[in-house]
Amino acid sequence: MPDPTTAGPAYWLRDNCPCADCRDPRSGQKLFQITDLPADLAVAAATEAADGGLEVLWSDGHRSTYPAGRGTADDGGDRRTEAGKRLWRAADFAGAPNARYRSPEADWSAYLADPAEQAAVLRAVQRLGFAVLRGVPTEERQVLAVAESFGFVRRTNYGELFDVRVEPDPTNLAFTAAAIAPHTDNPYRDPVPTVQLLHCLANEAEGGDSALVDGFQAAALLRAEAPEDFAVLTRTPVPFVYRDRHTELRADRPLITTDGTGRIREVRLNNRSIGRLDLPDHELEQFYAAYRRFAEITLRPELQLSFRLAPGDCLVFDNTRLLHARTAFEPGGTSQPPEGAGGRRHLQGCYADLDALASTLAVLDRRTAALDELAELFEGEGAGEYLGEAVTQAEHMLQAAALAQREGAPEALVAAALLHDVGHFFDKHSTGVVTGRQLMAGQDNRHSETGADWLAQWFPSSVTEPIRLHVAAKRYLCTVEPAYRARLSEASEYTLQVQGGPLTEEQAAAFAALPGAADAVAVRRWDDAAKTSGAGTPCFDDYRPLLARRMAER
Amino acid sequence: MPDPTTAGPAYWLRDNCPCADCRDPRSGQKLFQITDLPADLAVAAATEAADGGLEVLWSDGHRSTYPAGRGTADDGGDRRTEAGKRLWRAADFAGAPNARYRSPEADWSAYLADPAEQAAVLRAVQRLGFAVLRGVPTEERQVLAVAESFGFVRRTNYGELFDVRVEPDPTNLAFTAAAIAPHTDNPYRDPVPTVQLLHCLANEAEGGDSALVDGFQAAALLRAEAPEDFAVLTRTPVPFVYRDRHTELRADRPLITTDGTGRIREVRLNNRSIGRLDLPDHELEQFYAAYRRFAEITLRPELQLSFRLAPGDCLVFDNTRLLHARTAFEPGGTSQPPEGAGGRRHLQGCYADLDALASTLAVLDRRTAALDELAELFEGEGAGEYLGEAVTQAEHMLQAAALAQREGAPEALVAAALLHDVGHFFDKHSTGVVTGRQLMAGQDNRHSETGADWLAQWFPSSVTEPIRLHVAAKRYLCTVEPAYRARLSEASEYTLQVQGGPLTEEQAAAFAALPGAADAVAVRRWDDAAKTSGAGTPCFDDYRPLLARRMAER
Repeated sequence: MPDPTTAGPAYWLRDNCPCADCRDPRSGQKLFQITDLPADLAVAAATEAADGGLEVLWSDGHRSTYPAGRGTADDGGDRRTEAGKRLWRAADFAGAPNARYRSPEADWSAYLADPAEQAAVLRAVQRLGFAVLRGVPTEERQVLAVAESFGFVRRTNYGELFDVRVEPDPTNLAFTAAAIAPHTDNPYRDPVPTVQLLHCLANEAEGGDSALVDGFQAAALLRAEAPEDFAVLTRTPVPFVYRDRHTELRADRPLITTDGTGRIREVRLNNRSIGRLDLPDHELEQFYAAYRRFAEITLRPELQLSFRLAPGDCLVFDNTRLLHARTAFEPGGTSQPPEGAGGRRHLQGCYADLDALASTLAVLDRRTAALDELAELFEGEGAGEYLGEAVTQAEHMLQAAALAQREGAPEALVAAALLHDVGHFFDKHSTGVVTGRQLMAGQDNRHSETGADWLAQWFPSSVTEPIRLHVAAKRYLCTVEPAYRARLSEASEYTLQVQGGPLTEEQAAAFAALPGAADAVAVRRWDDAAKTSGAGTPCFDDYRPLLARRMAER
Repeated sequence: MPDPTTAGPAYWLRDNCPCADCRDPRSGQKLFQITDLPADLAVAAATEAADGGLEVLWSDGHRSTYPAGRGTADDGGDRRTEAGKRLWRAADFAGAPNARYRSPEADWSAYLADPAEQAAVLRAVQRLGFAVLRGVPTEERQVLAVAESFGFVRRTNYGELFDVRVEPDPTNLAFTAAAIAPHTDNPYRDPVPTVQLLHCLANEAEGGDSALVDGFQAAALLRAEAPEDFAVLTRTPVPFVYRDRHTELRADRPLITTDGTGRIREVRLNNRSIGRLDLPDHELEQFYAAYRRFAEITLRPELQLSFRLAPGDCLVFDNTRLLHARTAFEPGGTSQPPEGAGGRRHLQGCYADLDALASTLAVLDRRTAALDELAELFEGEGAGEYLGEAVTQAEHMLQAAALAQREGAPEALVAAALLHDVGHFFDKHSTGVVTGRQLMAGQDNRHSETGADWLAQWFPSSVTEPIRLHVAAKRYLCTVEPAYRARLSEASEYTLQVQGGPLTEEQAAAFAALPGAADAVAVRRWDDAAKTSGAGTPCFDDYRPLLARRMAER
């Protein structure tokens, strides 16, 4: 019997009970409050399960079953702190000797077409703090399309987007031709926008080059070189202010924010917007000395990654970490759109947030992992015999998909045909259902339900519901088409009986009335026809792009 | 000579230099970097100015002039912490004995019409954490109009807005009929939405009542009763997670966030979304004991302000502070819109942010203060004689406004007529310009410029530019209309000379070509006609709503 004390403290263990009464299987949300648990909660009995997991009987009578090991269901830790980042200096990027990282950039059309490319760009923003998309059409408002590709535009008093170009009557230094030192944007906002995008529409001016500085690196250097200054900056709230006729923003935040364990989590640096601190004189002196030292570090040439934005480039960066700067330039007139694109320097920018970016990345990764898992299943389990037919399970499913494609079926039905039997791939050990082998031994493995439920983690109902109904479709066809039943192979006739035999007339009418009946029947017919030994079939990888598109269907 | 050491540390003092080289007069943004200042910056000489202010010559040759006192230009401190709030219990609100606060509510139409009413509602959200608007039309998407009235809708994976009603296939406990314990929303988001709105479209179900709990109050009680538990909750990052097919959000944040000085700044509490903490066992035990104690405090009946949302009510609350809850209810079907409004319980919600809310409130307050200041000027300085005419300055300006109204002039020109001479109200002591008395003594006080510049803090150019040009308009009319000049009063003829005399023909043509020339001439004619002794005039307060509307013009 396992020692429950090594499984973790009682409240923690119970709070993570995975049973369906404690946690919604769909959303993973907990269905109880911590205060619903008795104050004297204790383990009454604990036994080791067959798979090495732990079965716990609680003092309040509840039973929990935990998988083996403590698990890391919510692994990854806080990716917003320095622990989740790769801190860099300018020389770390390709082009410099001893470069450690590829320059994080991608072509906009590749980013749109290829989930792996999109994931690489978003991961660069998450880990390095920035990425550049090339070839974004030099049209107004395209910057919004880039933001919407991974998240939600954060609207502010500047509007949905803002134009960075010389303005005749500027209310902000950004809208002049002056040089701007490394800074974060909108420090006077709380919550601050955590992602910034800058899309270059024109850049013909002399000067106006860009630079990025890793603010976490600068903060880490300050901590190493002057720990007391670092401490001052993390504990001193600084008033950041912005004011125009319709706006009066103020946020009181430290220049460096750390988490509860002292890790760097956010940087705000923007002298333009620092208001009047109201502190005792000795604290003002400490603060200004520390602030100056930090600002000087951000100006070190080895930290400044300099580049020039070309028309079509869209820079995406973490505004809680990266400082951005530009050199002064010769203003070339203050032309307004639509002539703006022909002007000297014109960027369009907008704000978005890191949480949605991280979510998009996690979902892309989850989908890639699911496709990898499917590919492995097709290679491994799929090589097994298909219920005594002359093809393997994988060949059978690939043939079904090819038949669907040949008939010009919509992608969702091609995907359903390809995946209709994945429920056969799981054995009792991992999923609690029986295998195809067990089906042939007389046990209904309900593989259509199992497969549909498992696939519903990633695929929409247009893919999963024909799969769920494809066994019922066979029983239906046997009822309404005697010729269909007569054509069944011996194995198929056998499994028909295990699956419950033909539907009654009443059941058949009810089935036909289901919204997904026609799709299920279509999948069934491809299923039945996909048993040709030696027929050339496509391979699983050919279907990855189609499956990825269907996963993304809303 | 004042002691510069009492004026504050050198860097602080210099960083707050108010001169136009150091700080953009329009935006208040600083035009230099802290690293631009020499490392050995010092005060070379300091002298007391005539008005008690400080004039400083710096070691790098720069000169600064500071007003008397250290000033509190950016006063107010961090309004997001408990220091800027009024912590409450249920009995603090009207209806209970010993109530300390009026229940923060307002009628939607009054809120829209009256800036004071709007400011009261927004102040309640800022200080108490919530307010209720009554009579918001029970139409879909109206909740967005409420959010847009003070800020910007924060879009999320749930969309622009979300429907809270029983759903057939809920992915979230909110969309069931179950009771929900006091919680904050979206703790798995970072940045978390800081404002939530819930607009009631229908509430005919048994149950489904609402409750609010002041999470800052609960956290303050925890700190008082169990300081060690409070410390644990402020330093332990907790993984909050949410997952559906297109979303995978995770934020690692403490249940209670404090600022650098230990003040409560944010509360997150939502057991549904707490993921698996990965900590040493003794820390898990500490955390769960503290978490349970905190959650128990939030359930104390004396903290729960219970009420029932009626159709048309829109609750606006601070999602970083207030916990909201609902009782279970009997679901009355899952009807969809447009029949939704006839269903049993249907709320529409959306998210927004506190920074824009605070900005809107500050601007409303700033406008009210400006109107108060104008009212005082009309009462005080305005009672003085008007350049030797038979009316006071205030009577003159009120008459000009009344004449503009009588002619059906647009509001902007009525406002310009009313305020055209405010530049006369300032004397050299406070603004560096000369007064009307000085004008009569032969000094051009450039009151049109002064007035227009001062008013531009609040008013759009449609109001300020006719004022700026109204003296030029007089000089123009004297050139192009000999009869106009002949009608000038003796005082007016005298000031014409001080102001530069009639325009040359060339100047007159240039003036007539200005876009605002016609408006300025109109104001000038009302100005000239507004000198009737004893004519009944409206009072300043009659114009406050009109002025408030013009201030809000974009």
